[in-house]
Amino acid sequence: MSQEHARPTAGPQHAGPEVPAPSHAERSRTLAAQARVGTLCTVAGDHTDVAGTPYGSLVTVAFDGEGCPLLLLSALAEHTRNLAARAEASMLVAEALEAGADPLALGRATLLGRCVRVASGEEAATREVFLAAHPRASYYVDFKDFGFWRLEPVSVRYIGGFGRMSWVSGEDYRRASPDPLAPAAAGILAHMNQDHGDALLAYARALAGVPEATSATMTAVDRYGFEMTVDAPDGPRAARLAFPAPLSTTDEVRKAMVALVKDARGRLAAG
Amino acid sequence: MSQEHARPTAGPQHAGPEVPAPSHAERSRTLAAQARVGTLCTVAGDHTDVAGTPYGSLVTVAFDGEGCPLLLLSALAEHTRNLAARAEASMLVAEALEAGADPLALGRATLLGRCVRVASGEEAATREVFLAAHPRASYYVDFKDFGFWRLEPVSVRYIGGFGRMSWVSGEDYRRASPDPLAPAAAGILAHMNQDHGDALLAYARALAGVPEATSATMTAVDRYGFEMTVDAPDGPRAARLAFPAPLSTTDEVRKAMVALVKDARGRLAAG
Repeated sequence: MSQEHARPTAGPQHAGPEVPAPSHAERSRTLAAQARVGTLCTVAGDHTDVAGTPYGSLVTVAFDGEGCPLLLLSALAEHTRNLAARAEASMLVAEALEAGADPLALGRATLLGRCVRVASGEEAATREVFLAAHPRASYYVDFKDFGFWRLEPVSVRYIGGFGRMSWVSGEDYRRASPDPLAPAAAGILAHMNQDHGDALLAYARALAGVPEATSATMTAVDRYGFEMTVDAPDGPRAARLAFPAPLSTTDEVRKAMVALVKDARGRLAAG
Repeated sequence: MSQEHARPTAGPQHAGPEVPAPSHAERSRTLAAQARVGTLCTVAGDHTDVAGTPYGSLVTVAFDGEGCPLLLLSALAEHTRNLAARAEASMLVAEALEAGADPLALGRATLLGRCVRVASGEEAATREVFLAAHPRASYYVDFKDFGFWRLEPVSVRYIGGFGRMSWVSGEDYRRASPDPLAPAAAGILAHMNQDHGDALLAYARALAGVPEATSATMTAVDRYGFEMTVDAPDGPRAARLAFPAPLSTTDEVRKAMVALVKDARGRLAAG
């Protein structure tokens, strides 16, 4: 359970042994960058009758440039009173659960460290980042009992679903960057699956090592490549294909996909 | 922030001073009964480099007849290793977040107490309850590293949205019962709002004290009554109306709604 992450790492199933994939540090940063809500875990303070018990609460959250959670908390709230007495805390962020999906297949990350008040010199910058993510907070950001808090992760526990998990150091987490394609990923998948099933099938047959493939569905895309579920007579299988270099825009993805389909069709025509 | 719950309590806005509403203990039990996923908070153990830090993790959860969380955990997982060393834990359950909704308006409850292995004599009953809620778990329930755990709440922190919150004792929580209408509530609201806007308007005008109402939307229903947003020339307002007695089936709700609309129209006709 304590396997170290490494970059690049391969997913659990893929076309070849060395298909580059996001590291767990990168996947954690990507999850955080997409999250607007998380569970803050603090230690219940002496003012409660469960002092010392870990206390989970729902919070809105934004993330600074190092992936550290930024929180806007009321001094009256239980979690804030807990933090004032004891800074050790964690923040759990998870992919959104879709109806009918298995929650245990969700990607999630727990960022563990210390959560302290943002220094007065950093309040303006924090406020800007937080309000950009949570415009509704402008209604209470200036209430006197509200203040900004920041959690600096010492360790991160990443879980990418069944059997794909590791500890990531706080340093590796902060140094990694969120996937630049994450905000566009759902749109790319929808477009490819709706309009380019023929290209996906060519990738599967010529590049993913499944010449007998009957159809393919794109299931994920990141800066390093994309994943498909490939249907074949002996059942579905997962495949991952790499981009020739890390990409950061949808336009780059489009060009890479076109180049890949030319390559694939060339290979299929050559038999 | 530590206001005691009481039953029956009124919501923050309502037609009269004494409109019965679910207690916070009941609302917490109802939230739990609807939840299939939660955040388990444990204390990171000495095997980690963040020992003593509260650790939040995503888990599937079911609830026994007293509202105690039942968990099926792998001995290999971090949270399980944490619990084996220290039983203090909490479980956060929340209403589902709909797209565009304000997460801070969600109802949620944190159940704090001790989480320990289910005794061997209670395993069969626990297994039955858990698998009924999580049929997919049948694939791994018999793996040797999996076992059942139960959290017995000492205290419950209930938050019903902005400014509606309290501590509930574990005893009050266990004695309360989940709302019997909760599984049907969404269907009742959809039916009333789609097909019976005229009845809702009559309730608003004759029974909710808004004779100038122009329309009304049903926003919640529970065993004790229902809530509406009433549109009027001076803006929308919230209203709560009581059923004559606590109800437990959709058929009873239908009959109560019919009786209420007769009453409302009689009053309106009488001027």
